[in-house]
Amino acid sequence: MSGAAPRCRARDLGLRPGQFAPGALNAITDVAGVLVGQVTRIEGEFTRTGVTAIRPHGGNLFRERVPAGLATINGFGKLAGATQLQELGELESPIVLTNTLAVGRALEAVVDWTLALPGNEEVRSVNAVVGETNDGRLNDIRARGIRGEDVLRALAEASDGPVAEGSVGAGTGTMAFGWKGGIGTASRRLPEALGGFTLGALVQSNYGGALLVQGVPVGEALGRFYLKEHADRGDADGSVMVVIATDAPLSDRNLQRLALRAMGGLARTGAAFSDGSGDYAIAFSTHAGVRRPQPAYADWPNDRMSPLFVAAIEAVEEAVLNSLLMATAIESRDPLTRRRRRGEAIDLDALRDVLRRHGR
Amino acid sequence: MSGAAPRCRARDLGLRPGQFAPGALNAITDVAGVLVGQVTRIEGEFTRTGVTAIRPHGGNLFRERVPAGLATINGFGKLAGATQLQELGELESPIVLTNTLAVGRALEAVVDWTLALPGNEEVRSVNAVVGETNDGRLNDIRARGIRGEDVLRALAEASDGPVAEGSVGAGTGTMAFGWKGGIGTASRRLPEALGGFTLGALVQSNYGGALLVQGVPVGEALGRFYLKEHADRGDADGSVMVVIATDAPLSDRNLQRLALRAMGGLARTGAAFSDGSGDYAIAFSTHAGVRRPQPAYADWPNDRMSPLFVAAIEAVEEAVLNSLLMATAIESRDPLTRRRRRGEAIDLDALRDVLRRHGR
Amino acid sequence: MSGAAPRCRARDLGLRPGQFAPGALNAITDVAGVLVGQVTRIEGEFTRTGVTAIRPHGGNLFRERVPAGLATINGFGKLAGATQLQELGELESPIVLTNTLAVGRALEAVVDWTLALPGNEEVRSVNAVVGETNDGRLNDIRARGIRGEDVLRALAEASDGPVAEGSVGAGTGTMAFGWKGGIGTASRRLPEALGGFTLGALVQSNYGGALLVQGVPVGEALGRFYLKEHADRGDADGSVMVVIATDAPLSDRNLQRLALRAMGGLARTGAAFSDGSGDYAIAFSTHAGVRRPQPAYADWPNDRMSPLFVAAIEAVEEAVLNSLLMATAIESRDPLTRRRRRGEAIDLDALRDVLRRHGR
Amino acid sequence: MSGAAPRCRARDLGLRPGQFAPGALNAITDVAGVLVGQVTRIEGEFTRTGVTAIRPHGGNLFRERVPAGLATINGFGKLAGATQLQELGELESPIVLTNTLAVGRALEAVVDWTLALPGNEEVRSVNAVVGETNDGRLNDIRARGIRGEDVLRALAEASDGPVAEGSVGAGTGTMAFGWKGGIGTASRRLPEALGGFTLGALVQSNYGGALLVQGVPVGEALGRFYLKEHADRGDADGSVMVVIATDAPLSDRNLQRLALRAMGGLARTGAAFSDGSGDYAIAFSTHAGVRRPQPAYADWPNDRMSPLFVAAIEAVEEAVLNSLLMATAIESRDPLTRRRRRGEAIDLDALRDVLRRHGR
Repeated sequence: MSGAAPRCRARDLGLRPGQFAPGALNAITDVAGVLVGQVTRIEGEFTRTGVTAIRPHGGNLFRERVPAGLATINGFGKLAGATQLQELGELESPIVLTNTLAVGRALEAVVDWTLALPGNEEVRSVNAVVGETNDGRLNDIRARGIRGEDVLRALAEASDGPVAEGSVGAGTGTMAFGWKGGIGTASRRLPEALGGFTLGALVQSNYGGALLVQGVPVGEALGRFYLKEHADRGDADGSVMVVIATDAPLSDRNLQRLALRAMGGLARTGAAFSDGSGDYAIAFSTHAGVRRPQPAYADWPNDRMSPLFVAAIEAVEEAVLNSLLMATAIESRDPLTRRRRRGEAIDLDALRDVLRRHGR
Repeated sequence: MSGAAPRCRARDLGLRPGQFAPGALNAITDVAGVLVGQVTRIEGEFTRTGVTAIRPHGGNLFRERVPAGLATINGFGKLAGATQLQELGELESPIVLTNTLAVGRALEAVVDWTLALPGNEEVRSVNAVVGETNDGRLNDIRARGIRGEDVLRALAEASDGPVAEGSVGAGTGTMAFGWKGGIGTASRRLPEALGGFTLGALVQSNYGGALLVQGVPVGEALGRFYLKEHADRGDADGSVMVVIATDAPLSDRNLQRLALRAMGGLARTGAAFSDGSGDYAIAFSTHAGVRRPQPAYADWPNDRMSPLFVAAIEAVEEAVLNSLLMATAIESRDPLTRRRRRGEAIDLDALRDVLRRHGR
Repeated sequence: MSGAAPRCRARDLGLRPGQFAPGALNAITDVAGVLVGQVTRIEGEFTRTGVTAIRPHGGNLFRERVPAGLATINGFGKLAGATQLQELGELESPIVLTNTLAVGRALEAVVDWTLALPGNEEVRSVNAVVGETNDGRLNDIRARGIRGEDVLRALAEASDGPVAEGSVGAGTGTMAFGWKGGIGTASRRLPEALGGFTLGALVQSNYGGALLVQGVPVGEALGRFYLKEHADRGDADGSVMVVIATDAPLSDRNLQRLALRAMGGLARTGAAFSDGSGDYAIAFSTHAGVRRPQPAYADWPNDRMSPLFVAAIEAVEEAVLNSLLMATAIESRDPLTRRRRRGEAIDLDALRDVLRRHGR
Repeated sequence: MSGAAPRCRARDLGLRPGQFAPGALNAITDVAGVLVGQVTRIEGEFTRTGVTAIRPHGGNLFRERVPAGLATINGFGKLAGATQLQELGELESPIVLTNTLAVGRALEAVVDWTLALPGNEEVRSVNAVVGETNDGRLNDIRARGIRGEDVLRALAEASDGPVAEGSVGAGTGTMAFGWKGGIGTASRRLPEALGGFTLGALVQSNYGGALLVQGVPVGEALGRFYLKEHADRGDADGSVMVVIATDAPLSDRNLQRLALRAMGGLARTGAAFSDGSGDYAIAFSTHAGVRRPQPAYADWPNDRMSPLFVAAIEAVEEAVLNSLLMATAIESRDPLTRRRRRGEAIDLDALRDVLRRHGR
């Protein structure tokens, strides 16, 4: 069902957004301790969806919370857990990404998972953080394909190491800029003089605009862009969830600022930030000294934040490119009309061509 | 299982917070069109929970949205739907209240309900608004007693007319100020010169502090208050959800301001606004001219908002009192220790005594 | 020009809002290091205004910043410095309070003062925090009576020790609840088991509603309240600035939460939180370990915040009462009509009477 | 003192960010009624600063307010008037831009100006909106060169028609991306099918990062960028103020969303959004039907906002380019060291070269 041509990451095409070098895997899992688990649900002619779970560390997160910040760039989305994350400045559950109509079920599964952890026998309150984008252009989203066990499996199988990208997990059925989108990731390492920290980003790309690839107007060159592409529908909608992890010992306030920089990375890919796009970023720190409830590390100074901000912009931009470049085509049937529909992967040869014409 | 003595509302005791008169029912349903439905789950020795659903009008809310505003007073809660409500300034689903660990299931049920409405056959995105407080002091909350069908029933049976108060619906297992709390409601009518509008409030009271009854320090007088009462636990936690309805033609911004005034009403009951209390208020307008997506009525002026603000403070204060005065005692067993536990209703005779000693 | 009868503080009348004990002075200066300076400008028949300056410590605040949080309860005000305070979570200038139309001049003076401090020779950016309320009901506010030197003097003469209250400093011309308002202060000490911290509040009261004195409806009893009192003008406007200091080692986020609790204290005095009232609270920590740019102390845990929240509510309520009880009558002429006008102090005998009738 | 070579606008180089066409002047004044006035202060060897004033319409703005929204992208700035703008969703004063340390004086001048308008004889409260960026790299900012009369003149001389760009007004002494920045403007017209509205942007560019010109990495190509360029200073600071005007009949909420899209335009120019950068955008509507206090037009629907969002991103990107391309070199002496310093304008030939190498 997926495109035959082998896919590649942005760096394989010579693309290197920004100036900082990536970590070993160029993935969010370059931040030590971060685990990612994904479940892909491609079933029959209709179901094209999945789950991606991000665990800040492998321990009991409810008992060892990580500071976190949220940026609501455009809040047309169903993100669960937002207000407590902001009030307390911390994550007490993993972050689970899935499709729009599966948030309830995923939320329940994260609660189940947390209640069942050893040491949580008396826990009666869990703030589950569940994000989503709408994969209804390829997935029969009203059929509610995600089960609680899919979420539990994504959490249980979460691991460090390379992260599968493209049409997998919560990105199985998503579209971005008129092409197949999906899961993408990237990372940056700061030089020692700037702190030596690692920062990683993971995106679930399902949004629109006019695709820019390191500044080259690929969307316009290939004739597929908002407003042209979607003028009939009047929108560039969809959404994007961004997760940013870092081992820098940041306060929740500085994590909130860091999360907002995701908007910079998205903008550089040509995002329209349209009305119907639920665009959110969550940033958390894995530094052991800032864990709650008894942090041992005082705040990283405001005036040393800027390199991390730049790293976040770069990693998000590259993660989006990876989500597109690694995505494979997905076909399904529309559940109402039963017509075939297909989310095409961006053509890598055509892309190389456009890039070459622009001196890359 | 409930206390034998007949319960009464605040006005039956001669209490009349504020200066505006209530509507005919002194309930949120005095705002024409608002429907309330409740399902109470008292089963066996452990389950003491329920659902309260508020529908701004009886039509297809997804197609005829009402402007709405949210105030997050203390965001230690699991309110679903917050960010979209704020971004778009509107409600596209009913507001459902339930217990903390049932949010996922309730959210799913609200999505089910919305998808199934005639005219919504192609809807693929629903922002379900689900609030909660933690009834785990009386309810076996980890057992997850709420089923989707409970939510669907509360929605289906929602009606105008009087609203059951006290230990019912989402207030079945809640506690407030050390006594049995629950659902309470009240309303206010503005004089014609001030707009002639009706405003109603409904609360799910489950929070702490030192109870004030129209300024009289009842909590201290009866020896049950935070910090004293809860000093062993170190907290006054719990939460409170407030819903405010009005027929004034308000913009979402002015509804957000109105929602924040709930804090004033809560403060006058002695709220501690403690760390662990998820205190939220949602306000919406039922005025036909401000419905979305094509409103026909321009904004109500800022400088005419103050009487509505006062009405909101008054109605919230009285709704909380009603939730306590109408609540009946609830007994259950602790699921871990199997010990009996009991949420006692505030003693009306003792209360009258204290009030009398304070010249009321 | 001021009323002849001696004024007193709330405790002198036996009023003791809340349950925690005050500090030695029952003033914001009970928080060690905090300095308050005030300049009162009563000149000719028209000028009735002033300046109140709060310095978190006696050193160079630009070089040793204190973490701080802001709560905008109703943002109809001209508070300068708000966005940087929130972005960085810190104060780099003192807090200066004055009248609405003097903010520009006061802002300039705070910049002057900061630039002139030893060690600041190369400083080119200063975030001056200047709050205000509108004393135009008694002061010829359009005449712009405040000069930069008034602000510099308030800063220079700021001292620890008792704080003058009532019709002084930035409270010289303010009105609250229909009576003469002004500057008020109060403090609370937490028991050692709850951290042993001191918290102090200072208010510039100029707002309206229906005055409650420890729950007793004094405004209604004495026939002076919004809406009745101001029905002709249709508003209860005015404003209130609240400053909260504590020696607890709080993060900016928890200081922001603490600041919001001011709303609780204001509500208990009967605030209407009307449209035209600029109601703000700023909280800061004087703890040496949380000073910037290199804090040495990690965050105070969220779940130990509640007693501080209660202390803030109590101190703000009492500070408002002190501002009213200590205020003396102020007379002036209206600059347009040249008619005499008078802000009357609340009558203490009448107040005692009402309190007695309500069992206090 | 300024560079000899003639400067040009982005379109003169063939640059056309985005897909919508500009208005007749490609300036914020394409939005009918908007007036811009600028005063440039280049005096002696030290003073290089100025004022830029934007008036939404030529009438008494205090009596005919325009709805407005604010986006605080990075709040390290001294923007005055922020909280009231947000609370009421409106502008009651012009927007004045100047240097960081002149905010107090400018604020006072805007108050003076407003009080003196016919019809405002009884006005006692004015919310002056004053933005700034720090021109201290070229201007002796501590000398406080801006006088109130400069602000009054900018307001009085504000006119429609072409807007001077580059090293003028509030952009006289600003730097961006290592080159001379300044004032820039641009506009977009939506096709009739999308509403036919005009949207204009004006920027005061003084921020850093790695300059992108329509995606081409000009900063890196010319060896002048953050982090490289500023690595010695450890920052890319500075700031940017963005003003967006439109004749679309928008609510304050949708204007706030529109303002946030400025971040998209800034990101596409390579902004680092660094810690010390005060990055703000204010958007207002000039549509006669949404003027306050008695608007006659109901909200423009959320789901028709996206084209305006795209137009805002495009206009802001182009306005920044215009600010750089039109800027002329500015020389001065450092007031402390008395050394000469120079803000060089970006070399247009070098720029053309880089663009050509990237296929533009």
